[in-house]
Amino acid sequence: MVGYDVVVIGAGFAGLTAARELVKRGHEVLVLEGRDRVGGRSSTTSLAGVPVDLGGTFVGPTQDAVIALAEELGCPTSPTYHEGANLIRWRGKVRSYRGTIPKLSLLGLLDIGRIQWQVARLSKGVDVAQPWTSAKAKQLDGTSLGGWLRSVGASASSRDLMAIMSRVTWGAEPDEVSMLHAVRYVKAAGGLDRMLDVVGGAQQDHFPGGTQQIAQAMAAELGDRVRLNAVVSRIEWSDDAVAVTSSGGVVEARRVILAIPPAHRLNIDVAPPPPIGYQQLAQRWPQGALSKAYAAYSRPFWRDKGLSGQALSDQGPVFITFDVSPGAGGPGILLGFVDSRGFDALSAEERRRQALAGFAALYGPDAESPVEYLDYCWGAETFAPGGPTAAVPPGVWTEFGHLLREPVGPLHWAGTETADEWTGFLDGAVRSGLRAATEVAAAL
Amino acid sequence: MVGYDVVVIGAGFAGLTAARELVKRGHEVLVLEGRDRVGGRSSTTSLAGVPVDLGGTFVGPTQDAVIALAEELGCPTSPTYHEGANLIRWRGKVRSYRGTIPKLSLLGLLDIGRIQWQVARLSKGVDVAQPWTSAKAKQLDGTSLGGWLRSVGASASSRDLMAIMSRVTWGAEPDEVSMLHAVRYVKAAGGLDRMLDVVGGAQQDHFPGGTQQIAQAMAAELGDRVRLNAVVSRIEWSDDAVAVTSSGGVVEARRVILAIPPAHRLNIDVAPPPPIGYQQLAQRWPQGALSKAYAAYSRPFWRDKGLSGQALSDQGPVFITFDVSPGAGGPGILLGFVDSRGFDALSAEERRRQALAGFAALYGPDAESPVEYLDYCWGAETFAPGGPTAAVPPGVWTEFGHLLREPVGPLHWAGTETADEWTGFLDGAVRSGLRAATEVAAAL
Repeated sequence: MVGYDVVVIGAGFAGLTAARELVKRGHEVLVLEGRDRVGGRSSTTSLAGVPVDLGGTFVGPTQDAVIALAEELGCPTSPTYHEGANLIRWRGKVRSYRGTIPKLSLLGLLDIGRIQWQVARLSKGVDVAQPWTSAKAKQLDGTSLGGWLRSVGASASSRDLMAIMSRVTWGAEPDEVSMLHAVRYVKAAGGLDRMLDVVGGAQQDHFPGGTQQIAQAMAAELGDRVRLNAVVSRIEWSDDAVAVTSSGGVVEARRVILAIPPAHRLNIDVAPPPPIGYQQLAQRWPQGALSKAYAAYSRPFWRDKGLSGQALSDQGPVFITFDVSPGAGGPGILLGFVDSRGFDALSAEERRRQALAGFAALYGPDAESPVEYLDYCWGAETFAPGGPTAAVPPGVWTEFGHLLREPVGPLHWAGTETADEWTGFLDGAVRSGLRAATEVAAAL
Repeated sequence: MVGYDVVVIGAGFAGLTAARELVKRGHEVLVLEGRDRVGGRSSTTSLAGVPVDLGGTFVGPTQDAVIALAEELGCPTSPTYHEGANLIRWRGKVRSYRGTIPKLSLLGLLDIGRIQWQVARLSKGVDVAQPWTSAKAKQLDGTSLGGWLRSVGASASSRDLMAIMSRVTWGAEPDEVSMLHAVRYVKAAGGLDRMLDVVGGAQQDHFPGGTQQIAQAMAAELGDRVRLNAVVSRIEWSDDAVAVTSSGGVVEARRVILAIPPAHRLNIDVAPPPPIGYQQLAQRWPQGALSKAYAAYSRPFWRDKGLSGQALSDQGPVFITFDVSPGAGGPGILLGFVDSRGFDALSAEERRRQALAGFAALYGPDAESPVEYLDYCWGAETFAPGGPTAAVPPGVWTEFGHLLREPVGPLHWAGTETADEWTGFLDGAVRSGLRAATEVAAAL
């Protein structure tokens, strides 16, 4: 038995941030990570010699916590390419547009402006920190985003566009996501435009070296305080002591921070068990599903045609693309978000074929012949499978939301799902780690 | 390594039925059960010398599978007491009524008749076996039962009454349950009246010896084919062989039946992992939460006042009661269904106090002094915590429902959640076991 002040479970952005903050304050900390790497839902690999992010990729204005952290650790950002026209593949045709959301005048079908306005108006009444206390909480939580869209008579085009937003944001269909969760989530990101935009929004910048380097730099600072391949199976706690059993043995601490997605909390046997609501919450805070496909070309050829590399498509599997090329001189890299539900079950060859066909439908036949191709299915992960974040169904926030980050004795909760600002993003993860560290430091 | 034809995981009604059926057909079968008992969500203890059921209790007409099984195993039923008037505690007053659902004329406020009619009409269009194919599937699955009730302008009283139905049926609030799931579930039980009634309905009879004896009789037949305390942690499979790792070691089989609730599927590491939809489904098919309180009195004193022992209350924690006394001559036993969400977190003493106060509000001060008292919190179980059955949120049936019982290679799925008739009940569990056994026998 070795005694620590704090054991942190999970070496994602939340857990590492919490550990680092507590070490700064002079506490003895150990981080246990089940995977053989740090970073959690941030994982960087390389394609055609260029670092590419399999998970969290972008940052943007007001994501101050993660930006400050990256700066401190010497990880520079680079603007996401956005010159030229965006494309939309819609109802069988490809057209170009400017800005984030195709405007009414373009398709003549969308009433998306009204929907955006209604979401913004609803969001005014929702308390991000305690959404269950909002006046319309029960009403909004009683239906899904999809149900709400139908109830306000959204057009088929608006619904399809919001479905794309839902897929890329939560990895889930609109009918699966509570309207209260949707409104709260969008508000926590500063509104729909802020959340979806490139310039001035959450996709404004990315890291040429990838996002995982930020986690790696934190882990390097923490040194042997981080143990990989340590799968936590059991926590036994009393008011002032916790024994954490992992595949690496048993360690003791005064406090524990569980920096893992809510759904993953179920995989750890806690004794004595927390009140039933905690387990009910964990059963009802599921991860979404989203995959990514990358293609590398000798150069970003779409730029020659005046295209930004940004596109939306109502036809899968690729439904959103970005240009994440390292620079004008290097190779061209297209990133496509892919609806994982059909895609992940396909053979590797068929996934490649379908993803490249999706790129080609937007950017022409040149897109079918990349120098390298890569895709990644987060659903196949052992830890916190799915992603990018939770898709909370109706009825859950109002019943169980108050327990989301409410400590149980010496057990504290972190992870991007527990954040109030930029929940679901890397920034929310960092903020949740800082909040949990403050909470624990006050209790030690 | 020992080779079996089939390994069944879970010794509840589904697993034991499947095992028994396969043994009858001449196959080598092993049942692995994580608990130290058989029965799953059926568990019988005793109170004042009378067997009482902590879990599944009642049976009724058209529950032919479980009734035939009980008869075959020599477990007799007895009618649930229903002479006299039922009580309803509503808006601060206690009144008596006849029948299952208090009628409009009684309270002058309820439009429950209209709601029942609308649910019945919707259910005609829902295919129980493949609800995702129904014409209105997307629409019904896009909202919750609570959202639907608001959308059709149900009165506050109707909504409160349906909330009681939701709590006792799924252990969940109406806002948490998909309207498609609700309609399908009610249809699978033969309609709202059939599901909620005593006479002619699902509460018509109970087993004087409890329901667990049925599981015990099946287990006795199976003999050393049932292993208790065998917690399954891992399944490795190929097309024609499966290795199942439990706390008792590794066994090999040609096929495996997982007779466990969908949410519990997440606790077993499956390699290679099934397609992502299976894991997404398991994250989205949560168990409800429902507790039970029993009080035993020297005699069923409420019968003297012409009361049936059946009651509804809009005030918790006891919200439905039944008389499950063994007979006119013996002690009187009141069963109360209790909303576990506040209740389970209370101290044992406070739970007793609140439950007895609930009984007394209905049946008078005599109810405060039982000879024995007992309650049970299913949320504290290690295996499949929660119960009585799954509370499926919006959007899940239409996205993932087609995978609910679709085999993955040699892995088959059973459990009451996978049944088309009386899903959620003991009868559905038995039917699912028979179906899975037939499926596996055809594949062997």
